[in-house]
Amino acid sequence: MQVVEDFQWKKGMTVKDIVSQFKHVGFQSVELAKAAEVIVKMKKNSAKIFLTYTSNMSTSGLRGFFAQLIRLGMADVIVTTVGGLEEDIMKSTGEKFIVGEFEADDVELHEQGINRVGNLFIKNESYMKFEDYIGPVLAKLYKKKNRWAVSDMLKEIGLMLNDENSVLYQAAKHDVPIFCPSITDGAFGFHLHMFQQDHNDFIVDVVKDFGNILFVTSHDEKKGVIALGGSISKHHAILCTLLNGGAEYAVYFTTDHKTSGSMSGATTNEAKSWGKVKDDSDVATVIGDASIMFPLAMIWALEELDKDKMLKKEGK
Amino acid sequence: MQVVEDFQWKKGMTVKDIVSQFKHVGFQSVELAKAAEVIVKMKKNSAKIFLTYTSNMSTSGLRGFFAQLIRLGMADVIVTTVGGLEEDIMKSTGEKFIVGEFEADDVELHEQGINRVGNLFIKNESYMKFEDYIGPVLAKLYKKKNRWAVSDMLKEIGLMLNDENSVLYQAAKHDVPIFCPSITDGAFGFHLHMFQQDHNDFIVDVVKDFGNILFVTSHDEKKGVIALGGSISKHHAILCTLLNGGAEYAVYFTTDHKTSGSMSGATTNEAKSWGKVKDDSDVATVIGDASIMFPLAMIWALEELDKDKMLKKEGK
Amino acid sequence: MQVVEDFQWKKGMTVKDIVSQFKHVGFQSVELAKAAEVIVKMKKNSAKIFLTYTSNMSTSGLRGFFAQLIRLGMADVIVTTVGGLEEDIMKSTGEKFIVGEFEADDVELHEQGINRVGNLFIKNESYMKFEDYIGPVLAKLYKKKNRWAVSDMLKEIGLMLNDENSVLYQAAKHDVPIFCPSITDGAFGFHLHMFQQDHNDFIVDVVKDFGNILFVTSHDEKKGVIALGGSISKHHAILCTLLNGGAEYAVYFTTDHKTSGSMSGATTNEAKSWGKVKDDSDVATVIGDASIMFPLAMIWALEELDKDKMLKKEGK
Amino acid sequence: MQVVEDFQWKKGMTVKDIVSQFKHVGFQSVELAKAAEVIVKMKKNSAKIFLTYTSNMSTSGLRGFFAQLIRLGMADVIVTTVGGLEEDIMKSTGEKFIVGEFEADDVELHEQGINRVGNLFIKNESYMKFEDYIGPVLAKLYKKKNRWAVSDMLKEIGLMLNDENSVLYQAAKHDVPIFCPSITDGAFGFHLHMFQQDHNDFIVDVVKDFGNILFVTSHDEKKGVIALGGSISKHHAILCTLLNGGAEYAVYFTTDHKTSGSMSGATTNEAKSWGKVKDDSDVATVIGDASIMFPLAMIWALEELDKDKMLKKEGK
Repeated sequence: MQVVEDFQWKKGMTVKDIVSQFKHVGFQSVELAKAAEVIVKMKKNSAKIFLTYTSNMSTSGLRGFFAQLIRLGMADVIVTTVGGLEEDIMKSTGEKFIVGEFEADDVELHEQGINRVGNLFIKNESYMKFEDYIGPVLAKLYKKKNRWAVSDMLKEIGLMLNDENSVLYQAAKHDVPIFCPSITDGAFGFHLHMFQQDHNDFIVDVVKDFGNILFVTSHDEKKGVIALGGSISKHHAILCTLLNGGAEYAVYFTTDHKTSGSMSGATTNEAKSWGKVKDDSDVATVIGDASIMFPLAMIWALEELDKDKMLKKEGK
Repeated sequence: MQVVEDFQWKKGMTVKDIVSQFKHVGFQSVELAKAAEVIVKMKKNSAKIFLTYTSNMSTSGLRGFFAQLIRLGMADVIVTTVGGLEEDIMKSTGEKFIVGEFEADDVELHEQGINRVGNLFIKNESYMKFEDYIGPVLAKLYKKKNRWAVSDMLKEIGLMLNDENSVLYQAAKHDVPIFCPSITDGAFGFHLHMFQQDHNDFIVDVVKDFGNILFVTSHDEKKGVIALGGSISKHHAILCTLLNGGAEYAVYFTTDHKTSGSMSGATTNEAKSWGKVKDDSDVATVIGDASIMFPLAMIWALEELDKDKMLKKEGK
Repeated sequence: MQVVEDFQWKKGMTVKDIVSQFKHVGFQSVELAKAAEVIVKMKKNSAKIFLTYTSNMSTSGLRGFFAQLIRLGMADVIVTTVGGLEEDIMKSTGEKFIVGEFEADDVELHEQGINRVGNLFIKNESYMKFEDYIGPVLAKLYKKKNRWAVSDMLKEIGLMLNDENSVLYQAAKHDVPIFCPSITDGAFGFHLHMFQQDHNDFIVDVVKDFGNILFVTSHDEKKGVIALGGSISKHHAILCTLLNGGAEYAVYFTTDHKTSGSMSGATTNEAKSWGKVKDDSDVATVIGDASIMFPLAMIWALEELDKDKMLKKEGK
Repeated sequence: MQVVEDFQWKKGMTVKDIVSQFKHVGFQSVELAKAAEVIVKMKKNSAKIFLTYTSNMSTSGLRGFFAQLIRLGMADVIVTTVGGLEEDIMKSTGEKFIVGEFEADDVELHEQGINRVGNLFIKNESYMKFEDYIGPVLAKLYKKKNRWAVSDMLKEIGLMLNDENSVLYQAAKHDVPIFCPSITDGAFGFHLHMFQQDHNDFIVDVVKDFGNILFVTSHDEKKGVIALGGSISKHHAILCTLLNGGAEYAVYFTTDHKTSGSMSGATTNEAKSWGKVKDDSDVATVIGDASIMFPLAMIWALEELDKDKMLKKEGK
């Protein structure tokens, strides 16, 4: 039995220190500390780690952290939405996103050619440069073959980039597959469509890619899921673990609640009814903004794993 | 200038009455009344109406309401996730879903072969029957042709059903296209994959379907979006309106908030920065569970439109 | 076992109809229908009904509904915060509140002398008139005696008003005590203070009032709690039921969630651990804006009770 | 203009480091970094700092942090609810609270004599010991005088305790007044009532205490508000700053949203319309669980202020 302990600041306190204290503070701080422990367990027990996140996390600075996690061996499979991949490419080609305000005047922003994602801004220009970039890429891919499973296509694109903070680049380099079950739901979809207009035999094979995610793991292998936010990125990962006998470890970070029956609010407990996670799995659901909650929990885990030499040596 | 008015119950009060009073009550009741008015406007001004919803709404009894709305001419385009389509088929073939509890014991449910979605339960059996049903359907489709755009495939499936409360059936009958940009993210994806294992030239063409949604409307046509929940169903509809010059009308119903930069919490205002809705559009964002908020707002609109003979005559 | 049923609109649908259908829809609609049933039960079983609400509900048009509920015999005890009482008085003396916007420019509002509560506006003027009104009232009270329990004082004030939509007035007329455990936390507190400056022996006896709420009910009497929002209004009512053996019935309407351990998010289940509600009580927690959820549930209950002649005849 | 930067973990990363990086990450992480900066500013500009929190924060381990903040000179005025004060006393007299689970079986807990606050547990025993403790305390107070303003009474009680982690103790020692506008809304209220039964002239003077909080600061003095959660603790502090010309600095930490017009969700912007904070004030609203968000922001501020020797030397 664990008791509540009075929290105290100590000068120079590390992230490791504070998350360790959180275990005794209460409410979501306790869940956060639990999530950190589950992450350590999934790694120490050699689980295959699914990292899933929604597009807005890639808009944010977490994108570079995801790339680092791949380098450190903390993500074996990525599942995300297409917007996040587009923005990863934009950033890789030098585009800068702006820290703005939630309460900005949206009509004014529209006039200035600025698109808002919460308190972050993306210029129209960045989308135009993406357009310039992606056309030739598709031509190159088509030259190789005309029918592509999504994750194979994303790997090729990753290999063409050269940015150590890019998820696509690091994933390609480290043989971490990226799955995106809704590849057309963004600017990328539009460009795929334009390309297909001129090359009718150009096929993006989403059905083939279902096989790829299905066989990325197995019943015998231990599986862990780290889900940031909801949406199909979360769902697709746990559909895969379900079809492979259920995950042994799962941590969800979300701002949504279970009360409306949504995927984003679905808890690790609800996942047990489906067999998405095992009945006796180690799970934690942390309610809060992933831009804060996730780095805290993950850094505690990284420090712990580093101590035990469980992290890959980080190259570039 | 509108003043707050004391709310009063009158015996036999109708939904129309209460939503009319909500305009003067305050907080989300005011936003709900505004949403009802925007729905009326979009219909009266002959906008093409995009109705988008997440899978859990189809789990719920709203599914029959969506089908009715198609019959009444209140939805011209549907965008949803694949889980909702699977469940629409299950229900069409006689499966019953159960009203359970949020706090149910998930391990026990799992043992009983019951899957939980919030406070609703789906039996494993229903999934097994879906499996039995969908195999022959895919064989029939393949016989016709080997390469299918998603919405074309869904129309064919709808025509094979025979349930007036089915979204797939009513949409097919009334030429309302259903778009599902993540068609593999569910049991259906698994069965598509199994089928492709034996029929390698079987193609589900998501890129072609992007063209279909793109040309479902135009810059010249007025456009209205009714989005329930978030996810790619919401995003895909407003991506389409963006590429067609922006929607004139938009109402969002969501339990999520704008504070984490997510799609589900993104407001109709944020959509203006992107040009997803026009700068001078009529918009409303209602915070609350769509299972309550949406029927209220929509019924107010239906009563109003019915009075003016703006609804299609409802056949079966 | 209850199954999910397809929701259907019927022309002229009443609030009674829709809430009855909600029972079979899913998510919060189910909880709302359950709450409606619990309200009926508490009335039919002659429970003493505690109605608690936060100040913003009185800012809204719900204030007139609360007054009506007292007339109908649906509230035996009121617990609220002082802001709501001040605004009840303002409205009783003819002040009008405005339906504005959540996204209003607050600096501009400040310059115009307008105070914002969500999307409702209150003019400074209304506060000034309240000041003019309350001074002589306190003088009259002091003339009667110098030491007042809060609920006794509020009854006297209610008797001085003459507005059928006033909670203070109707409560006074129908001998429904109003408890406000933080009577100084508002403009009223300031005026009490000013008055005491000149009349040092003027005492507002909050300790005495604790006895009043304690003895407003008993262990033997059945007790029901209807709590809108959180705060001390909710807490004070369930503290009273706790000290009287626990409530048999409780329905909470709140936008908050249990995940942060707050009073506003505390569920009817959590209340069981404390004995605030009985272990075998009939309870429901509805997540959503009370400005919509509460009238729906309550009207279903009123129609049901009216059918069985369980409501007081409504005078003025 | 600030750009989004890729977040990177560095071994041994401090809380100071991570919050500094948050400024460039996005969503609530940006707001958190802003809040940290506002706290530094309010201290550097010698503002009188109001720290307000709800009872559940005192249940949690934050209680010891609040005591530390008083020692460090980071809180000049405390406003809270009575439950938090009771629990501060319980902890000071040796009671231990337990870290439990949100999903605990509440009926079982009730049978075991355990009360749940989110995922924290308090034994009935702790309440019984509080009862034993508080009776003689009230007798002592009464001996001194029969009429007590709340904050004066709380100071006396603080002086009787001897626990460096106690808020009551540290506040008394450092002449930091504690205001509690709803002193009877808890077990303490019950014991006050019992005592008054035998000592009818025993008066807790809440009106007098309004004068105390009113004169705790002035128009001329700079004022800063740090509000954790909502409720009357938050409202009472900003009512005081309103009556003193408005605060120059305000940071709110809350899990609630502005969409229902509640006090807990009211933003620092809404406060401007009232003049609770000044039009040109430095403000930040952080959405998230205070058990995590507050220590992060405050520690960043402490490290920064410590560097500049702005903190009091911490005795015991």
